[in-house]
Parts: sequence; structure tokens; C-alpha cells
Amino acid sequence: MIADSLRRIEGLTVIADEERLRPFETDGFIQHRALPVCAALPHTEGQVSEILRRCREAAVPVVTRGAGTGISGGAIPHAQGVLMVLTRMNAIHALDPLARTATVGPGVRNLAVTEAATAHGLFFAPDPSSQVVSSIGGNAAENAGGVHCVKYGLTVHNIHALRLVLADGAVVALGSRSLDAPGYDLLALAIGSEGLLGAITEITVKLTPQPPHIETLLAAFDAVTDAATAVGEIIAAGITPAALEMMDRMVIEACERFMGAGFPTGAAALLLVELDGTAEEVADDRARVEAVLATCRAKEVRAAHSVAEREKLWKARKGAFAALATLKPDYYTVDGTIPRRMLPEVLARYDALAAEYGMTVANVFHAGDGNLHPCIFYEGGTPCEMERAEELGGKMLEICVEVGGTITGEHGVGIEKLKQMCVQFRAPELAMFHAIKAAFDPDGILNPGKGIPALKRCAEWGGMHVQGGVVPRSEIPRF
Amino acid sequence: MIADSLRRIEGLTVIADEERLRPFETDGFIQHRALPVCAALPHTEGQVSEILRRCREAAVPVVTRGAGTGISGGAIPHAQGVLMVLTRMNAIHALDPLARTATVGPGVRNLAVTEAATAHGLFFAPDPSSQVVSSIGGNAAENAGGVHCVKYGLTVHNIHALRLVLADGAVVALGSRSLDAPGYDLLALAIGSEGLLGAITEITVKLTPQPPHIETLLAAFDAVTDAATAVGEIIAAGITPAALEMMDRMVIEACERFMGAGFPTGAAALLLVELDGTAEEVADDRARVEAVLATCRAKEVRAAHSVAEREKLWKARKGAFAALATLKPDYYTVDGTIPRRMLPEVLARYDALAAEYGMTVANVFHAGDGNLHPCIFYEGGTPCEMERAEELGGKMLEICVEVGGTITGEHGVGIEKLKQMCVQFRAPELAMFHAIKAAFDPDGILNPGKGIPALKRCAEWGGMHVQGGVVPRSEIPRF
Repeated sequence: MIADSLRRIEGLTVIADEERLRPFETDGFIQHRALPVCAALPHTEGQVSEILRRCREAAVPVVTRGAGTGISGGAIPHAQGVLMVLTRMNAIHALDPLARTATVGPGVRNLAVTEAATAHGLFFAPDPSSQVVSSIGGNAAENAGGVHCVKYGLTVHNIHALRLVLADGAVVALGSRSLDAPGYDLLALAIGSEGLLGAITEITVKLTPQPPHIETLLAAFDAVTDAATAVGEIIAAGITPAALEMMDRMVIEACERFMGAGFPTGAAALLLVELDGTAEEVADDRARVEAVLATCRAKEVRAAHSVAEREKLWKARKGAFAALATLKPDYYTVDGTIPRRMLPEVLARYDALAAEYGMTVANVFHAGDGNLHPCIFYEGGTPCEMERAEELGGKMLEICVEVGGTITGEHGVGIEKLKQMCVQFRAPELAMFHAIKAAFDPDGILNPGKGIPALKRCAEWGGMHVQGGVVPRSEIPRF
Repeated sequence: MIADSLRRIEGLTVIADEERLRPFETDGFIQHRALPVCAALPHTEGQVSEILRRCREAAVPVVTRGAGTGISGGAIPHAQGVLMVLTRMNAIHALDPLARTATVGPGVRNLAVTEAATAHGLFFAPDPSSQVVSSIGGNAAENAGGVHCVKYGLTVHNIHALRLVLADGAVVALGSRSLDAPGYDLLALAIGSEGLLGAITEITVKLTPQPPHIETLLAAFDAVTDAATAVGEIIAAGITPAALEMMDRMVIEACERFMGAGFPTGAAALLLVELDGTAEEVADDRARVEAVLATCRAKEVRAAHSVAEREKLWKARKGAFAALATLKPDYYTVDGTIPRRMLPEVLARYDALAAEYGMTVANVFHAGDGNLHPCIFYEGGTPCEMERAEELGGKMLEICVEVGGTITGEHGVGIEKLKQMCVQFRAPELAMFHAIKAAFDPDGILNPGKGIPALKRCAEWGGMHVQGGVVPRSEIPRF
């Protein structure tokens, strides 16, 4: 029994009884769940290494998770496997204000990094809505985004180095504190690899100087198309806002009722535009943004007058998903990205698709980087409704690919988007993914069945675009 | 004969006579050279694919090159192989000002991208000193840097997508126009892979808005240590300069004599600090930079008073390597990176090492990101002097690793730094590099002998830090 084997690792907590395993049976993709054989909660890299070594020898799958807030199912346990939970590796090892870096364990919460850095005038830029609870290790594994990523980049753009334990227990140090590192860029490869290539045990993040001045504008529109057009025009004007968010009528009203942030109810769409920099730079950008908003027929534009007011707006925005749940308990959040200029067209196509399915869709998303989050409401009690919602979501992602975008913005593939991976990629790219996987994890014990679909499954789904008779170099259909 | 086989590819130029091959026998690492069996100059991706397919079938090595300005020897031909020259694939396919991207062939010159983007108020940020001639494909393959990378990042931070032809001729499309892309980050893996994983046939680069205001300061110091300390203090003050360059007495005087840029001769060290942004932001940063410079005992600080004066300063800086060559024809440029706070210590250790070897060393480098470029002068006519210069350079790189830095900043590993790769990495990391290589190029035909040392060679050199008896997963010692 693998649990017995793991219990022999010095100082390791191993949970194997069903009742105590229950809290770990799903992540944020709550539509799916499974109980692992056991859960292991290491404190040290040495324990992680030993867990992986023993699991590999026993040919037992391992799913690694942090806080479990991911919503593509990447951390859902494997029914024949071990769940490795890294939340106890939550020490901030070092913070170097001169180098603007912090070195932390994977279990450190996203917001805790910024809290530790604040005294030095620094912050950790990627800010997923889950940042109060989600862990840096999970953020790195999923390459998480957030409202400020349009200016400051995703998690991959804000990590200098990490330590990764491979499937055989060997530890590799990837990246460097410098801009460049010799050898292949294994750092970028590991980030966003959803636990398929190794377990992240230490992360050195980049810290960013706090901007001296911040201003947040709220603009209300009578037509979604006008708001969507304004997004493209703001970027085209050469402005890089610190955040550029959009929400539609349903979200505005849910947020207002739930949190009372002062959103203008009655508007068809709302933009939140945050500008940061020096006071003059912000004033200059603000004038240009306001000119664009006027041209695009914004019916109301106002600025947050205080830090408290700004924080209230962001709290409402980040609470939008909770607010939507007060309307109807069951909804499914999609995550895809499109070129900004396609926003008006794609939103209209989503409306038409939703009508075709007879389902309600609310939109709240990172408009500045074209990262859409349609929320599809369904009747949880009605048979097959969840499956229909997932089918509709899948079609929405396929539209993203069709217009030149991608099937992820910041949530990863997990189990949710395996099918759409066959639409996004052709056989040669998928074959390369499998070859990379085989190089890191030849026995396929790490998070099997997630992230990268087997080519055979793509063929079964009928989504595969096999070209030129290319034969896959390797596949790992083990578990 | 491989040349005959390649000649059968429609429309392909193949050169096989020695005289016409001569210009291709080396790159910027002129201390080493070799003649290939033949050179192929494709115009299209289809030809590249066919060249690779035929070479793989015939088990013939392929070295891919662009303009050949790299200085770590990555593009030096293989004596039994084909040299594939991509300079004819030099079309700018598309430029999208709204998306801020340009899609170009690998043979397009770095500066040509910025020239094409200027009319839209945009530029391509990475600016290696070679930018007038070096190609985007080569920049991507080596992950090139430049004076403005301290603010705008290296090439890897400025590429959205590329097309890569694999060793078997299959074409993969990597990355996306969005921030995120699903699947493993093969884009970052391909960038900086020095032609070992595939041939880049198309690149979609990120364009950056031109800053509204730029100011360039020149500060002269009586002591190198003071200038080095100022570098760390400027960054510690929360300022991100657009460029932060340092040069020592020897470089100052060579530049002044060669180009007359108005550098203050007699100073022991000089900093060039460029600030960009809005006028107020620049004024604010300038005041803070000047305060730091005063504290660090700068004896003279002045600003460029016009665009012409600023351009003259940068022309002199970018011409520094040419200027040094007027002093003495033979020198060897090292490229390593250290944490900024180590600058004073490392520069002092370099001086001591140079004295030990009885060699003259000049320093001109990207101080802001800790990227050092000591230039070691040697007597080209004296036996073994070049080897001693390379040995001294190798020791300097090992100091970079010792203080927590890396053996590259922007020039790649090529053949130059194979030995130092054994110092930078332990066996598990090197084994991973070989596994990645095997996944992309199982027959090892792409640029063999470059970039990643065989573990066996590391062991022979005595530099290998084998830990825990880890056995390499694969090695590719074919050619």
C-alpha cells in the first residue's frame, strides 16, 4: 500500500481515511470530483522528493495541489493516486528589496507576498481574484493572471527562478535572478505546466515598485458594442492601462445588489480603467482615455475620489463571481482569449450561441488583454444541464481559436479544456507536448489525464486536425 | 552527396565551392572557424522543411544561421554538415499597430523592424549593439539583449509567437498573440535554444509604444567602485531606467578618440543613465538619480541637450567594441551576469585576475541588469595567448556563478561556454537539457556540439557537480 510506504517518510503527514480526505476531493472546478488513495502534506523539499521517488517506484500517480482554487480541474485527485498538498510549505525564505525579489515556498498565499513587500514599496503584480487564498505554487503551475496583468504580465512574467522536483525525485534549479539564463528555458516550460512535469518546491518572484499615483475610472455604456470598441481604441491610442475590465448588465446589477460599490445600474456595460504612474502621466493618460470614452458614447464617466473608493470598486469587481452565485447557484465560468479588436464581434456571437442553447450568460472579464470569462448559468437539478453548459462553453472556446485567440487566458487546461486542445493545436504541436512530457516524466505518473490530450482521444472526438500524416513521437496513456 | 540532394529542392540556392563558402566559415566568434560541406539559402519555409527532412534522412548535421553576428560561436559551421542561411527570408509579412505586433521572416534585420514600426509610434525594444545587421531570427535563437533590456526585457520578453521547423521537417506554431497560451511553453523553450531544437521560420514580435520623453545623463567618477555602487543604489531607489550602462577608463578613452562623443577623458568610470516616460516622470526620476550620483561621489553629471547629442552618446556606446579594436586588434569579449549588488566586488576580483594573468581588461557593460562584458586583450601573434585569454574569460564566468549569477547575459553558450555550463548546472539539470534535446531532435542533427555539453565532457573537464549518483536520462554524442 502506497499510504504505508509514505508513512515511513520521517515527519510526513499522510491522510488515508475517507472523512478526512473529503475536503480534498475537488478544486474550484466543483462539477467534478474524486477521492485519492491518500493525501500527503509535506513540509520540506526532501519529503516531496521522497514521495515522488516512492510513488514512481510503485507506479502510483501523483496529483500536486496548493490551495485548490484553480477552476479547470487541474488539482482534482486521481482515484488510484496520491494527492500531494503543498500548503504547509508556506515560509517566505527571503526578500531582497535591492534585487526586488522574494523567495518563497509554494504554499505561500499570493497576497502574503505583497503584504511582505509593501514595507519596501514593492508588490507582487499578478493578482488573481483568488489572491487572498490561492498559493504562489498553484499560481505558477497554472500561470495565473489577474486584473493587473494587462500591464504587468502573467505569473510567468513575474518569476525569476524556481526549484522543481522531478518524477524520479531529482531536484532541479531553474532560471536565475538575472534576466538571462543559459541552456533551454526550462523555467518557462515548468510555469503553467499544471503539475505534469514536476512539483514546484520554491519560487523566486519578481517584485514591482508600487506606482506613485493611481487613478481608477468607471465608464457606463448603453451598448455592449460601444464598451467593447472603447477597449480596442484605448490600447490603440498607445495607452497601457494598469487594468481594463469590462462587465455587462447582469454582472453590474449582481455586484451592486451584493456589495453596493456604486456601480451604475441600468447600464448595458461598464468599463473599469485603472491608470498608474506619475501624477502627470496619469493625468495625461486620463485625458486621452476620457476622449476615447466620449467618442465611444460612454453615458457616464467618473473617477474614484479616494483610495477607499478605489478599493471598493476593485473589491466589487473581484467579488463578481461570488455576486453572480447569489443570483443562481449553478454557473460555469469559461476562460479564453481573443485579439482585442474582435471583442464586439465575439461578444455578439456569444449572445447568439447562448440564445440557441436557451441559457443565460453573464460577462465579466479582463478586456484589456482580450481575456473573456463568460459565466453560463444552468439548472443544477435538471439532468444533463451541466453537460449542456460545458458544451456551450466549449463552443465559445472554439470561437476564440477561430478568431485567432486561445482556449486559456489564465486558468489552465486541467480536465476542463482537453477537448478544445484538439482544436487549438495540430498533431505536430500535440506530439511535441507529449515528447516534452516523456522527457520529464517517462512513466507518466504526474497528474495523468490532465493538460494535454492523448492524440487518440483527439481523433475520437473528431477535433483533430491531422496534417501531412505526421505520426506522434510518443504518447503516455498509462493510467 | 547531400549537396546534390539539396540541389534537387525547387528554387533553392546551394553553395558548395570553397571560395564561395569562405564568408560563412565563422560568426562573430572569429577565433574559431570551419567550412561546411555546403551552404543552403532557402527563401521559404517549405524549403527549410525539405532541407531538414533530407539532412535527417542522410544523417547530416545542420547548422542554422542568420546574419552571423553572434559571438559565442553558435553559428560556426559543422565540417561534415550543411549550413542553412536564413537571411533571404527577410520579408515583413504584417504589422498590426492595434495589436502592437509585427510578423516577420527570420532574416529581417533587427533595426528594420523598428524602422517599419516608427510611423505608428512603436518600436522593437531589444537593441543589441549589432542591431543594424543582426537578424531577428538570430536574436531569437540567442535570446539577444541590448542597452534597453534593463527596462524592456530580452528578446524572449518581446516575442509573441513563432513558427519552428523541427528536425524531421514538421512545422509547429508556438505561442499566440495573447498573453497566455495553453500547453507547455514551447515558445520560451525555442527562444534562446541556439538552433538546437529547430529552425525558426517566422516571428511575431511585440512592439512597444515610443516613450513621449527621453533624457540621457552622463556621470563621471574617479573610482570604479563608486560608479558600481551608484548602479545598485539607482535600482534600489525604485527607479527603472530605460538604460544604465557603465564603462571604464580604457573604454572611455578609446571611444573618445575613435568617435569624439564628448566623453570625459580622465575619469575612471562613466555611467550612461537613460530615463523615459512622461516629462514629469522623467524629471522626477532625474532628480532622484542625480541625488544618488552625488552621494556616490560622481565628479561630473550632465544631460544630453538634444536628440542629436543623445544619439551621439549611444552611437559611441554601441561603437565601443569597434573603438577597442583600434587600440589592439585582438580581444575577447566575455558575457556573464551577476546580481547588481555584487558589482563592486566582482569588478575588483576581475582586476586581480587580469593582473594575475598579466593581461589587460577593459569593461563596458549593461550595468543595470548586472550583465558584464569584460574585454580581454591578447597578443594574437603569440602562441597560446588566445587560449590564455579564453581561460581567463572562463574564470571570470565562474566568478559570476559563484556570486549567484549566470554565464550568459545575452550572447548564448555556443561553443564558447560549454565548459562553464558544467559549472553553472548540476547533473540533473544537464540531464533535463539532454532529454529536451532528444524530444525535439532524437537523431541529434541540429547544431551538434553547441549549447549543451555532454555530461561525459563535463566529467572529463572535472567541473561536473554530480550529486546523489543521478544518472543522465539521455545524451546525444553523435557527431
